Amino acid sequence: MKLSARNVLPGTVVAVTKGTTTAHIKIELAPGLTMFSSITNEAVDDLDIRVGDTVSAVIKSSDVMVGK
Amino acid sequence: MKLSARNVLPGTVVAVTKGTTTAHIKIELAPGLTMFSSITNEAVDDLDIRVGDTVSAVIKSSDVMVGK
Amino acid sequence: MKLSARNVLPGTVVAVTKGTTTAHIKIELAPGLTMFSSITNEAVDDLDIRVGDTVSAVIKSSDVMVGK
Amino acid sequence: MKLSARNVLPGTVVAVTKGTTTAHIKIELAPGLTMFSSITNEAVDDLDIRVGDTVSAVIKSSDVMVGK
Amino acid sequence: MKLSARNVLPGTVVAVTKGTTTAHIKIELAPGLTMFSSITNEAVDDLDIRVGDTVSAVIKSSDVMVGK
Amino acid sequence: MKLSARNVLPGTVVAVTKGTTTAHIKIELAPGLTMFSSITNEAVDDLDIRVGDTVSAVIKSSDVMVGK
Repeated sequence: MKLSARNVLPGTVVAVTKGTTTAHIKIELAPGLTMFSSITNEAVDDLDIRVGDTVSAVIKSSDVMVGK
Repeated sequence: MKLSARNVLPGTVVAVTKGTTTAHIKIELAPGLTMFSSITNEAVDDLDIRVGDTVSAVIKSSDVMVGK
Repeated sequence: MKLSARNVLPGTVVAVTKGTTTAHIKIELAPGLTMFSSITNEAVDDLDIRVGDTVSAVIKSSDVMVGK
Repeated sequence: MKLSARNVLPGTVVAVTKGTTTAHIKIELAPGLTMFSSITNEAVDDLDIRVGDTVSAVIKSSDVMVGK
Repeated sequence: MKLSARNVLPGTVVAVTKGTTTAHIKIELAPGLTMFSSITNEAVDDLDIRVGDTVSAVIKSSDVMVGK
Repeated sequence: MKLSARNVLPGTVVAVTKGTTTAHIKIELAPGLTMFSSITNEAVDDLDIRVGDTVSAVIKSSDVMVGK
């Protein structure tokens, strides 16, 4: 399945922190460039996301702001 | 002002396309790694966003999905 | 690629309306149950989305509100 | 109050899971078609959301991606 | 219908600008405090939103960042 | 850094509630007008957000719905 989301950035999982319902995932896109994601614990379990996994950070364009 | 958004990624504007109300901005974060942003024309005018500008792509963690 | 987004709902495209930069897609999930999506024109072109296509509406759980 | 959100889909609550601050709600829209929502515990308490309730899943069009 | 969205802020419409598919609405919440909203043209037509209308700006808590 | 987000509303923090991974912040924008924000615990720690702080609620226009 191809996505309408314009941002599908490959990287490596460097941290997985599960809370009671919400988990935080840290993805290294490039050396020194990390992306922080907040998803459900269910998604972490379903995709079996672990440190070292090759994944993609997926972001809809309308969720990207610009700072200058 | 420092932001709660965990993702503030520096880059260079490589394209600005204005529609009637909504504009699309392409930001190069690293060679071969671009971020696509959809913002209001007002924001483009207010920040005077132009190709070549040094900017940051700002994304709230809860807007980042993971694909595996 | 499997997604962390908990909502991936299959359906059929019943309308595609392109604006200057933003397009609107109407997806029928079930008889009488349609989903409205607002995405970039680039995504419509890239995925070649047309009326009659079998697609999925993809929604992150944190973007779903509840009304009662 | 009528909403600008184009997606207001009626359904039945089939699961409520409260975390420390964030709750997950599962809404059945049609047989075999469920919607997963992540909202605050405060909202669950305020609306008194319980399994069996008739509710609506409310989603802004700009939060709906398309996969093909 | 009561909403899980924790932010339902009453105000007055002070500007409506329609693009080809996306419209911008400016809502005055209090003197000197305005809220900018980007919604579909369909929503503007459906709710018949006009300057002077009493409306509410509705925002999900997970879409509110904090700057300090 | 100036933001493309059209809504940067100044206020005072009146409550901070940390969960296991997600925190809730209540910001008073004006007497009787409060904004509820859901952010990561990491952001609360990083910005050292405390009751009484002068902060801004930051919201992208595309995340603001209208109710009428």
